[in-house]
Amino acid sequence: MKLEDKILNQFISPKNSNRKQVEKLITNVTSQLLDFLSNAEQKPTYPIFKQFDCSHFQINETPKNENEIHSNLQELYDLSMNSASPKYIGHMDSIPTLWSVIGDYIASAINNNLLSLEMSPFLTQLEYSLTKQFAKLFGLPETSGGVMLSGGTLSNVQALLVARNTVLKIKHGNVFTLKKEPVIFTSEHSHSSILKTGMMIGIGIENVIKIKTDKHSKIDCKDLSIQIQEQLKLGKQPFAIVATAGTTVSGNIDPLKEISEIAKKHKLWLHIDAIYGGAVIFSEKHKHLIDGIEQANSISFNPQKWLSVSKTSSMVLFRDFNGMKDNFRISAPYMKEQNAYVNLGEINIQGTKYAEVLKLWLSLQSLGKSGYNKLIDYSFYLTETFNKEITKRPFLKLTSKTEMNIICFRGEPNYLTSEKIDKWNENLQHYLLKQTNFFLSLPKYKNNLWLRAVLLNPFLTYEHIESLFTHIDNYEKTHRNK
Amino acid sequence: MKLEDKILNQFISPKNSNRKQVEKLITNVTSQLLDFLSNAEQKPTYPIFKQFDCSHFQINETPKNENEIHSNLQELYDLSMNSASPKYIGHMDSIPTLWSVIGDYIASAINNNLLSLEMSPFLTQLEYSLTKQFAKLFGLPETSGGVMLSGGTLSNVQALLVARNTVLKIKHGNVFTLKKEPVIFTSEHSHSSILKTGMMIGIGIENVIKIKTDKHSKIDCKDLSIQIQEQLKLGKQPFAIVATAGTTVSGNIDPLKEISEIAKKHKLWLHIDAIYGGAVIFSEKHKHLIDGIEQANSISFNPQKWLSVSKTSSMVLFRDFNGMKDNFRISAPYMKEQNAYVNLGEINIQGTKYAEVLKLWLSLQSLGKSGYNKLIDYSFYLTETFNKEITKRPFLKLTSKTEMNIICFRGEPNYLTSEKIDKWNENLQHYLLKQTNFFLSLPKYKNNLWLRAVLLNPFLTYEHIESLFTHIDNYEKTHRNK
Repeated sequence: MKLEDKILNQFISPKNSNRKQVEKLITNVTSQLLDFLSNAEQKPTYPIFKQFDCSHFQINETPKNENEIHSNLQELYDLSMNSASPKYIGHMDSIPTLWSVIGDYIASAINNNLLSLEMSPFLTQLEYSLTKQFAKLFGLPETSGGVMLSGGTLSNVQALLVARNTVLKIKHGNVFTLKKEPVIFTSEHSHSSILKTGMMIGIGIENVIKIKTDKHSKIDCKDLSIQIQEQLKLGKQPFAIVATAGTTVSGNIDPLKEISEIAKKHKLWLHIDAIYGGAVIFSEKHKHLIDGIEQANSISFNPQKWLSVSKTSSMVLFRDFNGMKDNFRISAPYMKEQNAYVNLGEINIQGTKYAEVLKLWLSLQSLGKSGYNKLIDYSFYLTETFNKEITKRPFLKLTSKTEMNIICFRGEPNYLTSEKIDKWNENLQHYLLKQTNFFLSLPKYKNNLWLRAVLLNPFLTYEHIESLFTHIDNYEKTHRNK
Repeated sequence: MKLEDKILNQFISPKNSNRKQVEKLITNVTSQLLDFLSNAEQKPTYPIFKQFDCSHFQINETPKNENEIHSNLQELYDLSMNSASPKYIGHMDSIPTLWSVIGDYIASAINNNLLSLEMSPFLTQLEYSLTKQFAKLFGLPETSGGVMLSGGTLSNVQALLVARNTVLKIKHGNVFTLKKEPVIFTSEHSHSSILKTGMMIGIGIENVIKIKTDKHSKIDCKDLSIQIQEQLKLGKQPFAIVATAGTTVSGNIDPLKEISEIAKKHKLWLHIDAIYGGAVIFSEKHKHLIDGIEQANSISFNPQKWLSVSKTSSMVLFRDFNGMKDNFRISAPYMKEQNAYVNLGEINIQGTKYAEVLKLWLSLQSLGKSGYNKLIDYSFYLTETFNKEITKRPFLKLTSKTEMNIICFRGEPNYLTSEKIDKWNENLQHYLLKQTNFFLSLPKYKNNLWLRAVLLNPFLTYEHIESLFTHIDNYEKTHRNK
C-alpha cells in the first residue's frame, strides 16, 4: 500500500521531494498576507460583521485546491479584526513583532512538545531559562522560577491553585476535607479570570471576595483589612490576595507595597496579576510604577500584550519554584525523566504545549531590552499626549488617573441629562469609527459606558491623536447645537 | 518623539514601508527551516542532549542582528527533537500538515483574539461551526457543540469541571459545601491529566478512583460496578466516569457501550477521552472501533495527534451545549455581547486564545475527509505490517492487543532472567537509535519497561519497518550468543 503524492505533498517531505513547491506556497501565502497587513492602516479597522450560516464552513469530502484555499483566506482577511492598524486602539491586542510571527511559524513546523525534555531538549531549557530571568527582572529571589502557559487566565489559575495547595496544605487538591471554607480577596476591578478561577479550583465564586476601590480604581486597603477580619469572624479561611498591576478597563495599579504588608500580617499568599502592567519592568523611567511586585509569592505576566508578542504568550512566576513543584506536580509515568529538568508538562496545568517560548526569545533578541525600553516609553509619550487633549476639554472625563497606556474616558457634556450620556458615548464610538476609522472599545465601568483607548501600536503618532480629537470636537459641536 | 526605523522595522509596517524587507526575511527563514525539515530523514532523529548553563539564553541589552538570530535558530534545529523524520516513531508527535504550519503563521500575524466575537468576528464563527460538525461526526445530537482549547489536558479539565458543576449542581464551583465527597472513576491506564484534573477541580486525586483493566488494558466493567458500589457504601458521591478511546501507552479502547450503560444506570456523567483515538472517525473502515462514543456527555479530541495538525489543537465537545454554557459561563463584563454568539472566552477555561481553529480548518480543506480517510487507513496498514513482524518472533511480546496505530512491545527472550529484561529492552532502544536512527520510546507499563512505536508519519514505509526488524534480529542474535 502506498499513499498518493497528492496526499504526501500536504506535508513538508522529509525526503526532500517537494521543497520547491513548499517554498512557492509560502511565498504565495506571504504575498497575500502582506497585501492585507502591509496596508493595514488603509483597511477598515473594524470589518462589517457578516453572519454565516452553518453550511458556510462545511467540512469538505474531497481536497480543495490551492486557489480555493486562497480565496477562503481572502475572506478571513476581509472579515477579521484589523489589529495591525494603528487606528485599532480598542483592546489589548497589539500588532505582533515580526519575529514573534516567525517564531510561531517555526514552532509549528518543528512541532516539538514542551511536555517533556525528551520531546523538546532545547526548548525546555529555553523556557526554564527565560522564565527564571523574568522572575529576577521582577525582583524575585534566586529561588524563583516559572512556567509559560497559553494565556493569562491559565497563569492566574495556576498561581491560585499553587496558593490553595500550599497555604491550605492540600497538595492533592481535596477542598471537601478542609475544616474551614477557603476565601481569596481581590479588587472589584480585577479581571474576570479571578472569578473563573474561584469556580474552577473548587472554592466557589462566592468565596472570591471583592474589595472596594478608591477613586482611582485601586484597592482600598482599609476595606481589604476589614473584609479579612469579616471573613475570619464568619469562620472562613482566607488564603490569598490577588492584587492587579494594570486593571483591564482603566490600567490602574493596586497599592502593591501596602497590600504585601497586609498579606504578610495575615500569612496570606500574595498573587500579583501583572498580566498587563508587568511590561513596564523594561522601562527604566517607569518601572517604579510596580514597585512592591518583588514581594509577591507569584506573578502572572503576558508578553502577548505590551511586549507585542503574538498570542498566546503568558507566564506565571513563583517566588519559591521548588515549593511550587512540591505542591503541584503530577507525574506522567509514561515520560522519561532526565537530568535536572522536571518535565514541564508535570508542573503546569497544560501538559502538552507548543513552543510559545520561541517567539518570546526571538522578539527579545530582535529588540533587546533597550528596544523594549523605547517602545514602552513611546507609549507613555502617546498617553501623555492623549491625556493632554482630554484635559483641554471640560466635557471629557477620565474614569481615574491614567497610570499606564490605557485611557478610559467619556463625554459628559453639561447640556446632557445623565440618562442620555451612555447613548451619546456609544454614538461617539460609532462616529469615530465611521469618520476616522479609529476603533475604541466601549466597556462598562461602574454601570456606565466609557470609551477606552489602549495605546500599544508603535505606528500610532501624535498626528493620529490630534486628528482623533478634532473629530471628537466635531461630534460634540454637532450635538451641542441640536 | 519618534521611534527609530530600526525599531519600527521589527514589525510588519501597516504603512507599507518595509514589505520587501519582510518578504526577504521570510524567504531566508523558510530556506533555513527547509534545510532542516526537507532533509529530516537524513538528520539525527534524537539529537545529542546538550545541557546549557543559565547564561546561554541571557536576555540581550541591545538588539541582535539577523545573522546572529539565524545562528541561534541553527542551534535550535540542530538540538531539537526531529519529529518530522519518518524514523521518529516514539511519541504521538506527528509531522504537521503543511497547511497547519501556514495556519499558525497566519493566526500569529493577524493576531485576532478568540476571547470575543468583537475581536475575531470570522474566527469565532469558524470555531463554533467546526466544533459543532465534529460533535455530529461523533454522533452527538443536534443539541451538541464545543470549544477548542490549547491541548488535551485542558479539554479533559473543562469536561470534568462541567460534569462536576452539572451533576453536583454546583454551578459556582464550591466543593466545600457539598454533602458528600465527590468521586470519579477511570481506568488505571487513563492519562495522567485525569489525576491532574482531580487535583485542580478541588475533588482531590484520591477521589479519582482507578479501575482495573483486563489483559488488553481495557476497563474491567465488573470492577467498575464494584467500585461504584464501594464508593456509595463509603458515603461518597460518584458523579462521572472517564473512559478512554486510545490509551497513551498502548492505544487501547475501553468498552464504551458497556460503560455507557453503567453510567446511565447510576446517572453518572460519561466523559470519553478520545484525545488520541477520536481520529478514526475519519476512517470508513475503522470508525466502528469507537462505537458507543455517541453515548458520551462529553468527548475530548486532539486533532494535534492523528490528524497531524501542529500543536496545540484540541477540542472538548458537549452533548448538551446550552447546558454546558448554563453551568460553566463566567461573564466578562468588559466585553461587548453580540448576536447569537456567546463570547468564547466566557465558556472555555482559557479566555484569550489564539486562532488554533484556523490550522484545523486549512488542514481539513487541503486533505478533505477523503484524504484523512486514506491517512488513517495507511497507518492501520503499517500497524498490521509491524504486528506481523512481531508475531513472527517468539521472543517479542505485546502489552495487549493492538487496536490503533500504537504498538507497545518488548523482548522477553527465554534465555534472560526476568530482572534482566528491562535492561535488555533499554539497550535495544539505544541500539536501534544508534544503528538505524529509529527512535522508539521506552514507557513504563505495569512496572516494566516496554518499547513503543506510534505509526503516524505518512512517509514511513514497509521498507522502513523491514529494516527496523532486521536490526532487532541482529541485536537479539548478538545477545543470544553472549
